[in-house]
Amino acid sequence: MANSRSGDSMTDRIVRVLDTFTNDRTTQTAAEIARRTGLPASSAHRIVGDLAEAGLLERDEEGRVRLGMRLWELALRGSSALRLRQAALPHMERVQAQIREHTQLAVLEHEEALFLERLSHPDAGANITRIAGRLPLHASSSGLVLLAHADPEVRERVLAAPLRAVSSETVTDPAALRTLLAGIRQRGYVVAPGSIEAVSTGVAVPVRDRGEVAAALSVVLPREAPVEPAIAALLRAAEGIGSDLRTMR
Amino acid sequence: MANSRSGDSMTDRIVRVLDTFTNDRTTQTAAEIARRTGLPASSAHRIVGDLAEAGLLERDEEGRVRLGMRLWELALRGSSALRLRQAALPHMERVQAQIREHTQLAVLEHEEALFLERLSHPDAGANITRIAGRLPLHASSSGLVLLAHADPEVRERVLAAPLRAVSSETVTDPAALRTLLAGIRQRGYVVAPGSIEAVSTGVAVPVRDRGEVAAALSVVLPREAPVEPAIAALLRAAEGIGSDLRTMR
Repeated sequence: MANSRSGDSMTDRIVRVLDTFTNDRTTQTAAEIARRTGLPASSAHRIVGDLAEAGLLERDEEGRVRLGMRLWELALRGSSALRLRQAALPHMERVQAQIREHTQLAVLEHEEALFLERLSHPDAGANITRIAGRLPLHASSSGLVLLAHADPEVRERVLAAPLRAVSSETVTDPAALRTLLAGIRQRGYVVAPGSIEAVSTGVAVPVRDRGEVAAALSVVLPREAPVEPAIAALLRAAEGIGSDLRTMR
Repeated sequence: MANSRSGDSMTDRIVRVLDTFTNDRTTQTAAEIARRTGLPASSAHRIVGDLAEAGLLERDEEGRVRLGMRLWELALRGSSALRLRQAALPHMERVQAQIREHTQLAVLEHEEALFLERLSHPDAGANITRIAGRLPLHASSSGLVLLAHADPEVRERVLAAPLRAVSSETVTDPAALRTLLAGIRQRGYVVAPGSIEAVSTGVAVPVRDRGEVAAALSVVLPREAPVEPAIAALLRAAEGIGSDLRTMR
């Protein structure tokens, strides 16, 4: 994962342990964690024991562990993720009530788009985004908005690195991406048809917190759906979120 | 806080550092963290540095730190908090659309009610609950539901400990609480007028995950509001959440 390193501070080792949990792997044994982290078994067992003792992991009846409510509490209380998401949720619900597909909020985190929130209609089309999941900046509509408004240094680093084609329509040519990003800054939104999946189109706009772009708000539509209503709804919502963020701490 | 101890594993020290952040204190200097944790300054500085290096804390321009998006990601991805909250949100929104006050989801965490989600109408009345905030089990309506369905061992420990009166109407007599809890198990809901604040009434019901009570769903109403519509809406929502949890991982 993005921030893990081969360094060996205890913090690094704890991060490596927590990083083995995913939306598809919610419980594990200490032995599985040792194998997945590459940590010596004794070290992994001790860290898992310490984390369980502190409530950051919870043990089930079979001795498997999962992420604890206490970890959730420590990570959320006072976090800017919570503040952004609290400001955004009512506006996202309005977008969702109108567009009835998927409405998402993402932030730039270590050169990827990290999704803080997703609302989905039960009958909505395809969408691979998950809360606390990531997508490449150059491929997702949210990521393109975040990349367009990132520090020039971050943008250059991303454009200089190999750009993976998530689908056959992902723009991976740095010069074409530069033009696309300039267009996003000028127009104030992006429409990215098929750049993640052929069957869907991402539409995204920037969300500003006291002038700075702090997040991207997006919808994922079936490829054949009109994009204009989504653009209008997103721009209105982003304006509302920015206004609410101004009055929040 | 609940799970912090005087032990000195590195995990404990990291928890002590993270625990100094609150909804009202979102950024701090390393010196402030040292003072608030009681850790030696050199130790606090090193832990803050390690946490910042791993992205679990983020530094701002003035060198103050705040909780990082990476910490949020590690705590949420694959967590049971996220799963519960994802199952609950659509049903909470239906309650909220009907009752238009505050709708909340809480879990039992270390003998307190920990709030995972809260939806609030802009014109709603008083409510001290915050996401990632806690309330005593014996005082809040959510806490009473969680306590009524807790392991007998947990319930006895809570009833044996000193019970603080949050308001003049908080029930603090263990025998009266026992009767109240038995009534909650029998009726399937609780109405707790004024037990947190004189001006409001909490109404809560249990949410079951494959038979086990996993959370409490509640609304906070102005004291004078009728409670029957809230009870009906909550029972319907809890049924829907339980049904959705059965089909989720």
